[in-house]
Amino acid sequence: MNKFQLEEHPHQRLNILTGEWVLVSPHRTKRPWQGKVEKVNKDPLPEYDASCYLCPGNSRMGGDQNPAYTEPFAFTNDFGALMADTPAGVEVTDCLLHARAVKGTCRVICFSPRHDLTLPLLEVADIRKVITLWQEEFRQLAADTDIKYIQIFENKGDIMGCSNPHPHGQIWATSDLPAELIKETSHQKKYYEATGKSLLQSYVALELEKQERIVCENDHFVALVPFWAVWPFETMIISKRHVPDLLHFNEAEQHALADILKRLTIKYDNLFETSFPYSAGMHQAPVNSGDHPEWHWHMHFYPPLLRSASVKKFMVGYELLASPQRDITPEWAARKLQSLPETHYSLQKV
Amino acid sequence: MNKFQLEEHPHQRLNILTGEWVLVSPHRTKRPWQGKVEKVNKDPLPEYDASCYLCPGNSRMGGDQNPAYTEPFAFTNDFGALMADTPAGVEVTDCLLHARAVKGTCRVICFSPRHDLTLPLLEVADIRKVITLWQEEFRQLAADTDIKYIQIFENKGDIMGCSNPHPHGQIWATSDLPAELIKETSHQKKYYEATGKSLLQSYVALELEKQERIVCENDHFVALVPFWAVWPFETMIISKRHVPDLLHFNEAEQHALADILKRLTIKYDNLFETSFPYSAGMHQAPVNSGDHPEWHWHMHFYPPLLRSASVKKFMVGYELLASPQRDITPEWAARKLQSLPETHYSLQKV
Ligand SMILES: O=P(O)(O)O[C@H]1O[C@H](CO)[C@@H](O)[C@H](O)[C@H]1O
Ligand SMILES: O=P(O)(O)O[C@H]1O[C@H](CO)[C@@H](O)[C@H](O)[C@H]1O
Repeated sequence: MNKFQLEEHPHQRLNILTGEWVLVSPHRTKRPWQGKVEKVNKDPLPEYDASCYLCPGNSRMGGDQNPAYTEPFAFTNDFGALMADTPAGVEVTDCLLHARAVKGTCRVICFSPRHDLTLPLLEVADIRKVITLWQEEFRQLAADTDIKYIQIFENKGDIMGCSNPHPHGQIWATSDLPAELIKETSHQKKYYEATGKSLLQSYVALELEKQERIVCENDHFVALVPFWAVWPFETMIISKRHVPDLLHFNEAEQHALADILKRLTIKYDNLFETSFPYSAGMHQAPVNSGDHPEWHWHMHFYPPLLRSASVKKFMVGYELLASPQRDITPEWAARKLQSLPETHYSLQKV
Repeated sequence: MNKFQLEEHPHQRLNILTGEWVLVSPHRTKRPWQGKVEKVNKDPLPEYDASCYLCPGNSRMGGDQNPAYTEPFAFTNDFGALMADTPAGVEVTDCLLHARAVKGTCRVICFSPRHDLTLPLLEVADIRKVITLWQEEFRQLAADTDIKYIQIFENKGDIMGCSNPHPHGQIWATSDLPAELIKETSHQKKYYEATGKSLLQSYVALELEKQERIVCENDHFVALVPFWAVWPFETMIISKRHVPDLLHFNEAEQHALADILKRLTIKYDNLFETSFPYSAGMHQAPVNSGDHPEWHWHMHFYPPLLRSASVKKFMVGYELLASPQRDITPEWAARKLQSLPETHYSLQKV
């Protein structure tokens, strides 16, 4: 019998942020694929689209008109999942039915007035303006003391449920701490209380020493494929400094975050020479709920593509009912991403 | 200010099986949809397809040939995510990297020799043969004392990652208890230890009394939209009797399970007059790991469609990073499903 090898044998890995295991099946890439193939849209987008409800000056679906904005622009979602005026309330029946009101706000953040410029195609200075807007939004949303958590995220690409290609992200702020954040808070806290250190700071130090899962880095941030990655090319951006949220970034860090966002998303686009779909978002300390010295700012990227621009990984039966499962090792994915150029493929060819 | 109302205001509901909350946004169905629209294949399937690797007598991708089977047929997946001969092993570094070997088997279950007969189109007597095969497989897989859990499931439809339309399900048996099962075991156990009763038996009794989320029932099973449903038309089938796994079903229960499977899946197909995609699977007690008096057999259906045969709910940015979120209330979905006929639309029109 062979010795157990991570690159060869099915195994589970622990997500130290959530306490959950993922099933890794390294040998499974040999599987032929006869299933669903996504349509890949290769048409370039125009700089301005008169029918786009996010372009400057256009009317939105809710009836409002966008200003002729020239910098990143935020507004309240006309069809948000949350409402600012939800009355408080709880309904419980026999410990079997539990419901409670949630109050909150959904914001939309247009990254650029340009309809065609996704993050990898924006200049670093322009991404930095997006970061500044995220900071302003965070500050303002946190000023409402009912708000306990602020989720900044982006769905990119129609296969990630994005209904408009105009580059934009969202912010959902809620009066409750969402499920994933409860898990990440408790695991970071346990580690912090046991060691006096940030879990992710120790983790980043170990990864920088090992150099097996690093995608790229700069003075202030590391992009890596986490040891417990679920999605084929899942990554995290982690700040080298232990800070609880994005309001703590100094000038140099703001610039460095813009830099690593651009470099990582260029590598993503270069992987299959396509505008790479993903859901991405920051995790940071809860607001208006006491001190959280355990919390370490980071950002997750969950991209669905597996084999090509048109074949994705499906998180379905076994994954939904039992445990997440992946077909390539995180180390393989990291080497692949690490080796890709940091110039966007569309510019290399010009 | 209005009173808090479940039908009107955003709220969270607790999943009593997993301990996790889901965000419900009842008002959000008004949102216009400009995003991805799935291709709907309306071509009827042939009874036999010479290019299908699951049809009787055909060659499989791994090279083996199927027998000329006439009853439900099972074989070991040629490209399974698990291997029976994985050597045992553990790798841990500094409490930050944790991996452990997983041993197991992946089986494929063809429901019928007919390429075109999904569960709603099979006769009740033929579904019962599938149930008998599930029981045999379960018994045989559990005979390996290394196996701790047996996940029986089906991915239906190409938008659920199913790579072959020939009606089939899968069974993955593993040497570890998967994440979802750890949660469900612990919550059932807590309730059982506190009350001496099965959590789901109490829950079913409450739902039958309330009659707000019942889809259909017979003498031995209930199909309902759980109070904490995540997917738009998510349902559960729960046995009225408290049994830990499908080996405990008597003759009458086997027949009744076939009956309710057919009725529920017919309603699903009738909802949007399409072969309704879903991932579905049974949850039952772990095997080879002591007594589990808390465990109550049930089956989950996770269907993605939201508005029509071509518009699904995307579980993306907020859902992956923060908390699952749904746009229609479980009560609305249950009323809709409950009102649908129990004759398949394709037969109504003949
Ligand atoms: O084994 P299949 O049917 O080829 O594969 C399908 O089901 C599996 C189990 O849910 C998933 O891991 C795959 O992503 C999906 O495509
Ligand atoms: O708000 P949008 O972009 O229209 O909607 C998208 O993102 C939301 C947040 O992840 C999801 O709930 C929706 O299913 C998805 O289509």
